[in-house]
Amino acid sequence: MLSRQIASKLLNYETPFYLYDIDLLRRTLESLVYESEKYGYKVHYAIKANYDDHILGVIREYGLGIDCASGNEIRKALELGFDPKGIVYAGVGKRDKELHYAIERNILAINCESIEELHVIDAFSAECGRCTDVALRINPDIDPKTNHCIDTGQADSKFGISYEEVLEHVEDIKSLKNINIIGLHLHIGSQIRELHVFENMCDKVNVIVANLASLGFDLRFVDVGGGLGINYDVPENEPIPNFASLFSIVQKHLDVGSREVHFEFGRSIVGECGELITRVLFNKTTATGRKLLIVDASMTELVRPAMYGSYHNIENITSQESAMEKYTVVGTACESTDVFDENVSLRKSRRGDLLTIKSAGAYGMSMASRYNLHDLPSAVYSDKL
Amino acid sequence: MLSRQIASKLLNYETPFYLYDIDLLRRTLESLVYESEKYGYKVHYAIKANYDDHILGVIREYGLGIDCASGNEIRKALELGFDPKGIVYAGVGKRDKELHYAIERNILAINCESIEELHVIDAFSAECGRCTDVALRINPDIDPKTNHCIDTGQADSKFGISYEEVLEHVEDIKSLKNINIIGLHLHIGSQIRELHVFENMCDKVNVIVANLASLGFDLRFVDVGGGLGINYDVPENEPIPNFASLFSIVQKHLDVGSREVHFEFGRSIVGECGELITRVLFNKTTATGRKLLIVDASMTELVRPAMYGSYHNIENITSQESAMEKYTVVGTACESTDVFDENVSLRKSRRGDLLTIKSAGAYGMSMASRYNLHDLPSAVYSDKL
Repeated sequence: MLSRQIASKLLNYETPFYLYDIDLLRRTLESLVYESEKYGYKVHYAIKANYDDHILGVIREYGLGIDCASGNEIRKALELGFDPKGIVYAGVGKRDKELHYAIERNILAINCESIEELHVIDAFSAECGRCTDVALRINPDIDPKTNHCIDTGQADSKFGISYEEVLEHVEDIKSLKNINIIGLHLHIGSQIRELHVFENMCDKVNVIVANLASLGFDLRFVDVGGGLGINYDVPENEPIPNFASLFSIVQKHLDVGSREVHFEFGRSIVGECGELITRVLFNKTTATGRKLLIVDASMTELVRPAMYGSYHNIENITSQESAMEKYTVVGTACESTDVFDENVSLRKSRRGDLLTIKSAGAYGMSMASRYNLHDLPSAVYSDKL
Repeated sequence: MLSRQIASKLLNYETPFYLYDIDLLRRTLESLVYESEKYGYKVHYAIKANYDDHILGVIREYGLGIDCASGNEIRKALELGFDPKGIVYAGVGKRDKELHYAIERNILAINCESIEELHVIDAFSAECGRCTDVALRINPDIDPKTNHCIDTGQADSKFGISYEEVLEHVEDIKSLKNINIIGLHLHIGSQIRELHVFENMCDKVNVIVANLASLGFDLRFVDVGGGLGINYDVPENEPIPNFASLFSIVQKHLDVGSREVHFEFGRSIVGECGELITRVLFNKTTATGRKLLIVDASMTELVRPAMYGSYHNIENITSQESAMEKYTVVGTACESTDVFDENVSLRKSRRGDLLTIKSAGAYGMSMASRYNLHDLPSAVYSDKL
């Protein structure tokens, strides 16, 4: 925990803020690049996880592509110098102006999620005399054994096209002259910790790729998405996710010939390098005897606990007490759901102490809101301290 | 439904956007002022529900005070010309700079939510040679029979001080020389549709006020909060909430002598005047046969369905079809939770159609985020069309 090492220095910053361990980010990227290059895999960073400029700058140094979910994300990536030919654009609902923008920027591929979208991209491409590279996002119908809020690949999900629908519309799809179907895209979910799930995914992908090939689709790449989980429980035990294991499973089980294999990682790249640092404002005890620790962060800075019931490990980084207490750690927002966690064992905590809410580098700042007119939190980077 | 009346005009605006019916807002405020003046009740608008400048300007015309949940909300209210002496400031976690700001602005009262907070305000006030007016926010331990995410007044909640704790610290509280305890504040929850709950609240308040008086606290006002629900199911049936019934219940059951009675309303003032207008991007059918309507709004513009499972009535306002279909209406965000509603009966809907997501004036724009780097939604006002 970086914050524990530099706690006294952090006392001078206005809380709450995100603290980013850029050294850990670099070590994570080094591991990712080292492991992926063994097999020639290409990696896209899922910018939705965290679109902080400084973090993106570091990621760019390692040669990753970008996985975007909106036109603004493509714009951000291009502004920061990422190669358009490393950018993929997914999303069930792409607006007209976003599609036009993506088509004109000549990115690697637009991942199409419905038959209607294929037609729209074809028509927009024709209007500007282009032929647009697209990937079919196929819904693989796999249960990723994760929080149902973040699974994305089951048959009833809003994401992707079912293989049956592709089959039904195959001639229709082939008749579209202003799109090139160059890839297959899948994504089964997020925060997957049971790696055997990826074996099932590979089996599915093998079948889908073979079937699409037999239908005459000449795929250049297969993008198997991401989903590798991080250790929210005890981040210190596993600061860098086990990319090696995942890649070795895929290498063993995926059978897609000479096609390029792409991955999309967001949380596993930036999740552990970020902490939300917050200050204790008040102690109080409810009529039922529950000890509350009221901190100056809230769901407006980190919405995952309120929104998904997500767990983040919390620690008091400045208390000098040896005695431990059980606390419910609550935020400042005028919402009952604004609770970071219950029954948290912390060193006895007092007004002014700093707490860290760990593993907050992904889906923290990028989901922040200004509810209660809170200011957006600032960021402190370890390499700029 | 304003949007239904002016649907063809709305087709020219870039979607998604909030449409505000300023005439309905004025009629709501007229009803509220008329009914509250019957009993001399004071009303504060809970600015957290919607802090749009134009809406706040209209509310100011009707002489309401403001209920704030942060220093920035106080700043916003003052900038827009609201009287500091109509401003109350509540919140479990007030930061030091927010308390300093509130103390210096000499607002009506800071609603204190813990014994520790009383001490802090006393100390800060002493530092700048002031005596600050405060209200005690007492946790009334009432079940408001609403969504547990938005109840705020049960014994185990993070909000307020228990009466027992006041009793335990009474001499301590009285010893604080730089605060004046001038009011009592309670808030039992939000979106309360069973008005008899307010009878229980009055009974509780009567006891608490009598007890505080017997302890020697000389209260000038009693702020019973808000919580009046709106009709999300069929908003057309009840565009203006039944303030008359609520006030008549309180008049009948509240017994606080000559003390001023204050209310705080947010949702009931602005909830029904706002709609989120969104465009259909794509139709598709999942492998399980579910018909999806993908619209260009998402949880980034309106988070309530994804966050609380809240229901909003949805209608297609431009389709000319008479046939109805059942749809699952999903948003653009890369999140499985980004679903506005399932099994919605709509006129047969096609790409380009406009849908309205009704009753979105409260906790819509004020909770918006820029996740997926979405732009914040714009606003269209009926009196500026």
